[in-house]
Amino acid sequence: MSAAKKSELGVTPLSEDVSAWYNELVFKAELADRGPAKGTMVIRPYGYRIWELLQEQLDQRFKDTGHVNAYFPLFIPQSYLQREAEHVEGFAPELAVVTHGGGKELEEPLVVRPTSETVIGEMYSRWITSYRDLPVLINAWNNVVRWELRPRIFLRTTEFLWQEGHTAHADQAEAMEETLRMFDVYAEFALNVAAIPMVKGEKTPTERFAGAVRTFTIEGMMRDGKALQSGTSHYLGTNFARAFDITYQDADNELQHVHTTSWGMSTRMIGAVILAHGDDQGLVLPPRLAPIQVVIVPIGRGEQGDAPRAKAHELAAELAAAGVRVHVDDRDASPGFKFNDWELKGVPLRVELGPRDLDAGQVLVAQRVGPIDDRGRPVKDTLSFERFVAGVPQRLDDYHDRLVVRAQAYLDEHRGRADDWDTFERLVRTGFADALHCGEEACEDDIKTATTASPRCIPTDGEPEEGACIRCGAPSAYGTRIVFARAY
Amino acid sequence: MSAAKKSELGVTPLSEDVSAWYNELVFKAELADRGPAKGTMVIRPYGYRIWELLQEQLDQRFKDTGHVNAYFPLFIPQSYLQREAEHVEGFAPELAVVTHGGGKELEEPLVVRPTSETVIGEMYSRWITSYRDLPVLINAWNNVVRWELRPRIFLRTTEFLWQEGHTAHADQAEAMEETLRMFDVYAEFALNVAAIPMVKGEKTPTERFAGAVRTFTIEGMMRDGKALQSGTSHYLGTNFARAFDITYQDADNELQHVHTTSWGMSTRMIGAVILAHGDDQGLVLPPRLAPIQVVIVPIGRGEQGDAPRAKAHELAAELAAAGVRVHVDDRDASPGFKFNDWELKGVPLRVELGPRDLDAGQVLVAQRVGPIDDRGRPVKDTLSFERFVAGVPQRLDDYHDRLVVRAQAYLDEHRGRADDWDTFERLVRTGFADALHCGEEACEDDIKTATTASPRCIPTDGEPEEGACIRCGAPSAYGTRIVFARAY
Repeated sequence: MSAAKKSELGVTPLSEDVSAWYNELVFKAELADRGPAKGTMVIRPYGYRIWELLQEQLDQRFKDTGHVNAYFPLFIPQSYLQREAEHVEGFAPELAVVTHGGGKELEEPLVVRPTSETVIGEMYSRWITSYRDLPVLINAWNNVVRWELRPRIFLRTTEFLWQEGHTAHADQAEAMEETLRMFDVYAEFALNVAAIPMVKGEKTPTERFAGAVRTFTIEGMMRDGKALQSGTSHYLGTNFARAFDITYQDADNELQHVHTTSWGMSTRMIGAVILAHGDDQGLVLPPRLAPIQVVIVPIGRGEQGDAPRAKAHELAAELAAAGVRVHVDDRDASPGFKFNDWELKGVPLRVELGPRDLDAGQVLVAQRVGPIDDRGRPVKDTLSFERFVAGVPQRLDDYHDRLVVRAQAYLDEHRGRADDWDTFERLVRTGFADALHCGEEACEDDIKTATTASPRCIPTDGEPEEGACIRCGAPSAYGTRIVFARAY
Repeated sequence: MSAAKKSELGVTPLSEDVSAWYNELVFKAELADRGPAKGTMVIRPYGYRIWELLQEQLDQRFKDTGHVNAYFPLFIPQSYLQREAEHVEGFAPELAVVTHGGGKELEEPLVVRPTSETVIGEMYSRWITSYRDLPVLINAWNNVVRWELRPRIFLRTTEFLWQEGHTAHADQAEAMEETLRMFDVYAEFALNVAAIPMVKGEKTPTERFAGAVRTFTIEGMMRDGKALQSGTSHYLGTNFARAFDITYQDADNELQHVHTTSWGMSTRMIGAVILAHGDDQGLVLPPRLAPIQVVIVPIGRGEQGDAPRAKAHELAAELAAAGVRVHVDDRDASPGFKFNDWELKGVPLRVELGPRDLDAGQVLVAQRVGPIDDRGRPVKDTLSFERFVAGVPQRLDDYHDRLVVRAQAYLDEHRGRADDWDTFERLVRTGFADALHCGEEACEDDIKTATTASPRCIPTDGEPEEGACIRCGAPSAYGTRIVFARAY
């Protein structure tokens, strides 16, 4: 059965081996490929279109919250990294270093940016002089490099694409407000665009960004119960302002350090989409990130297919005019082959149109995720051309909502409260465990060794609770249960 | 006069010193800044917005001509560059090399991409197997690094942003058609978006892209008469297909090499916009690339300004809803300061609205480039609110056309036919010279030594003509006059 299934789809079923499924699917669906240099990836057009749609919708949210885009250099003098002690400690092991340029050895090696706090700190110290210059609300879309020993496409690659927001404020209150605003933007985006309900919370000290005072994270649940950190927002206090001398004259002519924030979301989010929604048949793409939202498959060989094909293109033109991303699959291949292919590629709506449908003025609409019949096949809706075309936007919205409900149900089923160690161990094997913890790093390490689970976050919506640490029995920290899980 | 002028605007007049004007203006208008690592640049929000608008409109043209976007890795194994002999010879002196990653020395150094023919060649050889896979029409937006000893912001920087299109075709005819299609797209884009009429032509062999069979270029004329190469499109023949073994099975089951093309436009184009349109007062931005197309300056101090300010925001909201990029300048500063500032920043339309205008239901509209009165001040049009709002899109289109006409006139005035050496020398001091040339590299070098001018292109629209080389008197090559100029 499994071998037969794999030969049909070309991909190991998710229900058998999530890791094999993921690796095979990424290639088979032509989302990405491995680059020649170890740890690098090539994002193929189908995968890159997801990124473009993500960029467009996330960028709009940045602009709506008053941010502007800019570009900072790829190369950073090595000495800059060393100015913030925790920052260099966190990033030094992951750096790629340019030692030669223009045929000569450089006097000072250049680091390929792993993140841009340092070079942006330097620029902000030049640009900011007065309280009138604040706040500075800048975002950058770029590529960063963090050396990766165990690369996995989209999830961990030596080079990845992301955006990094960097803001500077007059005081802590305003900077914290910004940190939380972007944290909310990420969670709202994940839910309303990627259809992934996130667990929102603050990182424990060990999991904080190197150089941050506070780090907030959104953690998605993947189909194997693991957590995927999908976006982070950091309050950096005056750490980088002190390291790079970013000061301003306040209204009373006093010199003050600015308070900075940074926040990022990356191509990792494509991995989140694959792993949060996919199934044995392949990808399941949320409509707002789907390169193709509707595929129309005209049926009928040779001349028999001419009229359905012409009608398919006519309907596609109407949908495209209404802003729907639609594709007509008129390849010379069997309908069965095409159905499997678009299933694998996760297209939300598949439309069939044969000669008899054409005569009857109707199409058959199947949904990638939706009601199924007794034989496990999708129930197809028969719709007149007009009703079909007019109804697509609503149908896509409903489809989005269905994915959210399904993902939320999955999260709820695989998240539980652990009041004893056995329950904790059982829960983190298949999902998230909410448990009390002492907050000690040694105890976190101990849990990690025993279960491979780590603290994901202190949930923002956690009820006040205190008691004994789930592992060592010492008094709990944080004032609430924290979420543990295995993580990507 | 000059010192006074500079102290008012903060920038040396263009008419006195183009180079100083350019360098000062880039900083003063907050387009860009120097990065900490030598030769790198920071593109500030005002400059980056120009880039975003360029990207949006150029990308739409790529999609309209059937291209899709993808992403290829920043790092390329050093050995890849060596596979195409001319390519490595051209790029080796400009490479930045990563020798250390993750704390260790690498077994094989990685090159930071100067352009991606090699890594894309490798991927295409994996992806392409059959004639059914062709054509492959991919573009990538990314950053590249070419070590630069004499950096100038936007014009020559060690790192710059660009797009690089890479296509693969079954045969030469199809690949040449693509090469010329994208060449036309660039020229059309430059004219209709950047308002720069380009001289279109083919590069002479010495100026070809390293590894190309034919290179086509668009050359803009800058305000100092120099040429700026603004976009190139290359037919690469089977050079990279042979180096990277990109083959396909044709319909007769014969193995064939693909024919490839590549084409690029970069952040250099921002430099072209500055240098083609600017004047003593600062930037002149073409409306389709202007971050702010209309600035409204409410007049009136304190309470007197409240009503104009409110009305300004109301008008701005109406314009924004119509898709106009509009900004209300309600800073606490004098109108004169604001006028100079927006002039410097090149905003096409400036609108004044004082208490008396408000009573009269009107605004005053001044154009950054337009009719001037006896005192050299812009003629202001008095328009009712309704006529003003309704007329902005047309006014911006007219403004665009005016910049094109002005730039074309400037090009025509500064381009001439040289039939003797004296005329040639005179022409290339202030612009472009059309002259016959023998096509010998030594003679090109000789001309360069004598005048600093180099062959810019063999114009696509050149009349057939033959005769004696302008420099050495030998029989002319190319069958037409070619364009010489000093160049950036």
